[in-house]
Amino acid sequence: MPKAKVKVGIVGYGMIGCRCADAVSKQPDMQLVGVADSVADYRVKAAHELGYPIYASPPENYEAMAKAGIELSGILDDLLKEVDIIIDATPAGVGARMKPIYEKAGVKAIFQGGEKHDLTGHSFVAEMNYESAIGRQFTRVVSCNTTGICRVIGSLFKAGLVERSWVILARRTTDPWKAYKGATLNTMVPETHIPSHQGPDAQTVIPELPIVTIAAKGPYTVSHMHFAVIKAPKEVSKDEVLKVLGNSRRIALVDTADGLYDLASVMELMKLLGRPMGDMWEVAVWSDILSANKDEIYLVYQVHNLAIVIPENIDAIRALTGLESNPAKSMDLTDKTLGVRSGSFFKKVKFG
Amino acid sequence: MPKAKVKVGIVGYGMIGCRCADAVSKQPDMQLVGVADSVADYRVKAAHELGYPIYASPPENYEAMAKAGIELSGILDDLLKEVDIIIDATPAGVGARMKPIYEKAGVKAIFQGGEKHDLTGHSFVAEMNYESAIGRQFTRVVSCNTTGICRVIGSLFKAGLVERSWVILARRTTDPWKAYKGATLNTMVPETHIPSHQGPDAQTVIPELPIVTIAAKGPYTVSHMHFAVIKAPKEVSKDEVLKVLGNSRRIALVDTADGLYDLASVMELMKLLGRPMGDMWEVAVWSDILSANKDEIYLVYQVHNLAIVIPENIDAIRALTGLESNPAKSMDLTDKTLGVRSGSFFKKVKFG
Amino acid sequence: MPKAKVKVGIVGYGMIGCRCADAVSKQPDMQLVGVADSVADYRVKAAHELGYPIYASPPENYEAMAKAGIELSGILDDLLKEVDIIIDATPAGVGARMKPIYEKAGVKAIFQGGEKHDLTGHSFVAEMNYESAIGRQFTRVVSCNTTGICRVIGSLFKAGLVERSWVILARRTTDPWKAYKGATLNTMVPETHIPSHQGPDAQTVIPELPIVTIAAKGPYTVSHMHFAVIKAPKEVSKDEVLKVLGNSRRIALVDTADGLYDLASVMELMKLLGRPMGDMWEVAVWSDILSANKDEIYLVYQVHNLAIVIPENIDAIRALTGLESNPAKSMDLTDKTLGVRSGSFFKKVKFG
Amino acid sequence: MPKAKVKVGIVGYGMIGCRCADAVSKQPDMQLVGVADSVADYRVKAAHELGYPIYASPPENYEAMAKAGIELSGILDDLLKEVDIIIDATPAGVGARMKPIYEKAGVKAIFQGGEKHDLTGHSFVAEMNYESAIGRQFTRVVSCNTTGICRVIGSLFKAGLVERSWVILARRTTDPWKAYKGATLNTMVPETHIPSHQGPDAQTVIPELPIVTIAAKGPYTVSHMHFAVIKAPKEVSKDEVLKVLGNSRRIALVDTADGLYDLASVMELMKLLGRPMGDMWEVAVWSDILSANKDEIYLVYQVHNLAIVIPENIDAIRALTGLESNPAKSMDLTDKTLGVRSGSFFKKVKFG
Repeated sequence: MPKAKVKVGIVGYGMIGCRCADAVSKQPDMQLVGVADSVADYRVKAAHELGYPIYASPPENYEAMAKAGIELSGILDDLLKEVDIIIDATPAGVGARMKPIYEKAGVKAIFQGGEKHDLTGHSFVAEMNYESAIGRQFTRVVSCNTTGICRVIGSLFKAGLVERSWVILARRTTDPWKAYKGATLNTMVPETHIPSHQGPDAQTVIPELPIVTIAAKGPYTVSHMHFAVIKAPKEVSKDEVLKVLGNSRRIALVDTADGLYDLASVMELMKLLGRPMGDMWEVAVWSDILSANKDEIYLVYQVHNLAIVIPENIDAIRALTGLESNPAKSMDLTDKTLGVRSGSFFKKVKFG
Repeated sequence: MPKAKVKVGIVGYGMIGCRCADAVSKQPDMQLVGVADSVADYRVKAAHELGYPIYASPPENYEAMAKAGIELSGILDDLLKEVDIIIDATPAGVGARMKPIYEKAGVKAIFQGGEKHDLTGHSFVAEMNYESAIGRQFTRVVSCNTTGICRVIGSLFKAGLVERSWVILARRTTDPWKAYKGATLNTMVPETHIPSHQGPDAQTVIPELPIVTIAAKGPYTVSHMHFAVIKAPKEVSKDEVLKVLGNSRRIALVDTADGLYDLASVMELMKLLGRPMGDMWEVAVWSDILSANKDEIYLVYQVHNLAIVIPENIDAIRALTGLESNPAKSMDLTDKTLGVRSGSFFKKVKFG
Repeated sequence: MPKAKVKVGIVGYGMIGCRCADAVSKQPDMQLVGVADSVADYRVKAAHELGYPIYASPPENYEAMAKAGIELSGILDDLLKEVDIIIDATPAGVGARMKPIYEKAGVKAIFQGGEKHDLTGHSFVAEMNYESAIGRQFTRVVSCNTTGICRVIGSLFKAGLVERSWVILARRTTDPWKAYKGATLNTMVPETHIPSHQGPDAQTVIPELPIVTIAAKGPYTVSHMHFAVIKAPKEVSKDEVLKVLGNSRRIALVDTADGLYDLASVMELMKLLGRPMGDMWEVAVWSDILSANKDEIYLVYQVHNLAIVIPENIDAIRALTGLESNPAKSMDLTDKTLGVRSGSFFKKVKFG
Repeated sequence: MPKAKVKVGIVGYGMIGCRCADAVSKQPDMQLVGVADSVADYRVKAAHELGYPIYASPPENYEAMAKAGIELSGILDDLLKEVDIIIDATPAGVGARMKPIYEKAGVKAIFQGGEKHDLTGHSFVAEMNYESAIGRQFTRVVSCNTTGICRVIGSLFKAGLVERSWVILARRTTDPWKAYKGATLNTMVPETHIPSHQGPDAQTVIPELPIVTIAAKGPYTVSHMHFAVIKAPKEVSKDEVLKVLGNSRRIALVDTADGLYDLASVMELMKLLGRPMGDMWEVAVWSDILSANKDEIYLVYQVHNLAIVIPENIDAIRALTGLESNPAKSMDLTDKTLGVRSGSFFKKVKFG
């Protein structure tokens, strides 16, 4: 008898929520029950247009949303009755207010990186700590930047190549849909605290990671750029580093020789590859820029501010619900259904 | 016996070419034979990845492209032998150099708005002059801005609402993939000639259109914004204008009340709707901003700099090859296969 | 016996206030008593560094400001006792709350364009209505965009060249000092109401001005660009228009042939000319772009978002206090002391 | 008998040249003979307006420049006959073509950072190696970024606090006057080579400086931001680092508590302080962001892309001509005449 599909609800249909809804819909072992949101703006109207059942949350917004022309399937409570697990993709800080509701309803829940580690006591990056999440009621998928750090610096650390690391994050200021009024323009704004939160945040996933992060935000919307300096415990060659990264999951090497000069051209490649929403789930590491000098490694990589956490959310569903106890099997399935690549974006190009 | 499919080749796999390739692939009455390009950068590698046959043009670039790992299907001549019609999507001005090659090969060809009207003697916007293109060897799909003007101002003109019109175009500076070095930043650059070329260009499609255009380019990449002032021959109400636009093809009304405040949020909606490459083939007209005052009409609309011409190219194929002599039937098929909407992006929302 | 100098206080040392302080300091018939502000950030520390007496407003902020290292001269009440007139350069809306305080103190006051016309019942542009402000207790210097419109469209109107006019304003999103978090990025945001407020606002100065304005804000900080379409009551030549503008006060013609292609290069010219803060008090009209076609005039001009109102504030001081009853004499003195030009920025260049 | 003034000519009146002209004019021991340029655009017309004698270079441009209305003082040869020393501020690479001309004319010359070190065999930062430039015929004032690195990292190195250092440079894309067409927009572009040229370039001034630099350019025009990670040879406290920087010349500490949050607000402060062209000759180091952790130091600082090299050019004149053999005396005079600060921008603020 086939296993029943896990029933998933999404709370908050913003830029993370909409991507999770699409991704859940593509999983053979999951069923998207519906999405809950508080307003009936273009985002929710688009969800409606795609045929996703819509629930009002908080319930007092039901009337206004219905009046805006949305055919509603109920309120949040109705959704919670139908699901095994919730992906909470509400704005930063709201998840903390929602957790007691999920607890009361007896559903599992995955929070996003805008919440604090303490909310769940567990922070999740599939490749790093899938197993420790199995069966838990709650976890938190860490933010895009932290996920990127865990994948790249974490992979090198696991390969024994990191004695000390410093990552400078040149963050995008905001998402395009918010850039009509809340952006940074023609300037760069440093974060006032060093280390910035991403370093310690990565340590909630990989406690012993020897890292310091410094962050600033700049006037662009198309993902983040990280500059990493790594001190290795020994002399290391560029090939050695490339090999580790090339074999790591959800990291793809890119090369300026292909015309991939910058954040924007890499995002254009995603569109050309037919990615939904032009998404890049992978971290893109520039292989030609990457450099090693004695016991130092220098690298530049790109982290998409939304897409990168989507496969992690899918894997977290399987871990929390116990759908799959083998991390690699979960990630293989996620990567296959979504089209996530490892190593390279160009599988058909014949090298050397 | 079913009609044979029209065989189509694309020359130039840039931001127009790649979209045309995808759109042609979706037509039941067309077959994409292949795409020709001159280099093997990430754009062409993506085409290869998608499985499109690649041809080298010019032929002397064959070696370099093959060496870059692309499995080539031949050179431009090989492609020309196989096709009925070419979509020439080469950079502005190159089409003029290619035309003799297409003529010699005896294939039909569609050029883009970067070429001059005189190159073909016919400029094309499906809704306006499909019939005059039937059976021609060559036509030119006019540029994005001109297409937008023809659709919006042209529709109102055909409805008898335009005695005189002035359109100010706030153009995007460049496409994202070129924005690593050739953009405008933190400034606005007026075009030095009034009328800017788009007004006269629209008159190559609708000769009697009474229009003057003024253009400037600004520091953004996500499509163009037009501000139109129209003098009607009589008093006119907002409802009357909305009705004409709401019933026009490939125009969709948007409303800031839905959170669609600006160019970027409308583009986010396209992503949310699952559009390939986040594309907007339609002109988006803000219905709440639209205003009428006695015999004057004011409106603001958005023109996507690439996507808007794609359905026009598809219709142009049917017109030139004689696949379809009924303009509405061609446009219906194009719009259905691509998912182009008219009137509204939200078909499921229940109004009033 | 020489007339006593008018004693001036500035309330609000922001981007308007700081410029007014410098401009007042340069007037032979005015004395800057001091500036009041509510915090001790870099702006106020700079005022302190320049030697301007600083007053705390509201008084409860005295302690905090003193603690920050500012040597204070007192609180707002102390300042009000010493002055004849206040330039209120507080943020939009605050002026309305301050007016009763000025009334009670029996001082005259000039408000800025962020306040409503009704606050004072009089709105001021020196060239247009200096005389009607003479002896009043309060006036309002209209906003930068409205001032620009009054100068340019108003001058043409006074010359009998405007039967109807439409101005599209492509506004800068915000000032540089606020662009670290509150800006528009990579998009253009239309105002939702047509006419935008600047048209009716210009009519508070020139009641019969036949104008409609449409506005949008774009991702740049270096001043505004206006696109004007004017219907004249008769055929008009470009030379005729240029002559009117060339002879109007505080308008300077610029030409792309000089490399002045855009908003930013004109601002660079201001720096090159040694202007304080790189300011442009004049409206810059592109003479080569300006075009006339039968009874229609098209023009593009640039309005600096802060500097343009500074000479107006200075003249308003003379009008309200009755220092000078001849508008031209006041404006001549203002323009001479500040270095405001009319006609051209290049006085030494020998033309043909 | 007073020493005769050194006669200085400027070749290339661009954004460096215009600042050098102003700075030279303010020196009591120098005389600005004139400036040479090749065109008569707004930059040169502004020089003319300021009363600087203009010379045509190359001579064949004399006619065109005169025709544009500039009253010329001669050609480059005429200028060279009158001067002791030239500041060559021509575009990158042009200086190398000019050097033989200066050699033939027997004048000394200072080149800018766009030229290679080998052109002169000597690269100059006043605080670091003034003495080695005394009496030379040629030197090169290193680029803005390299100058910033030499001042900040160099000062700490001289104080024994640098065993190893890594600096990530987030460069501005271009200057405002070029941003109408040649900028980076909504993206970040990494340099393809690590180390980027600034590290080795700093070593042309301080040969033993242990530094690696990584660079990228971002979409802003208002100066550069550097992120430095330093490994000290021992444990070091934040106070110790601040003390070294606070006592270093041409470095000023800034604090986000003053509202100086970003590149743009620091530049606004320069305007508020009445700096010519809004210039910042100093490197601004954020004192509150600066952090020390055991033997590691982290700091963020801002380098203005043009102004920072101006005092260096002035000092280089004194060194090459032998006007002053005491480096401190030259720098004292430069700093006093220009208003360059060390330690803090707020000298009047009373600290705790």
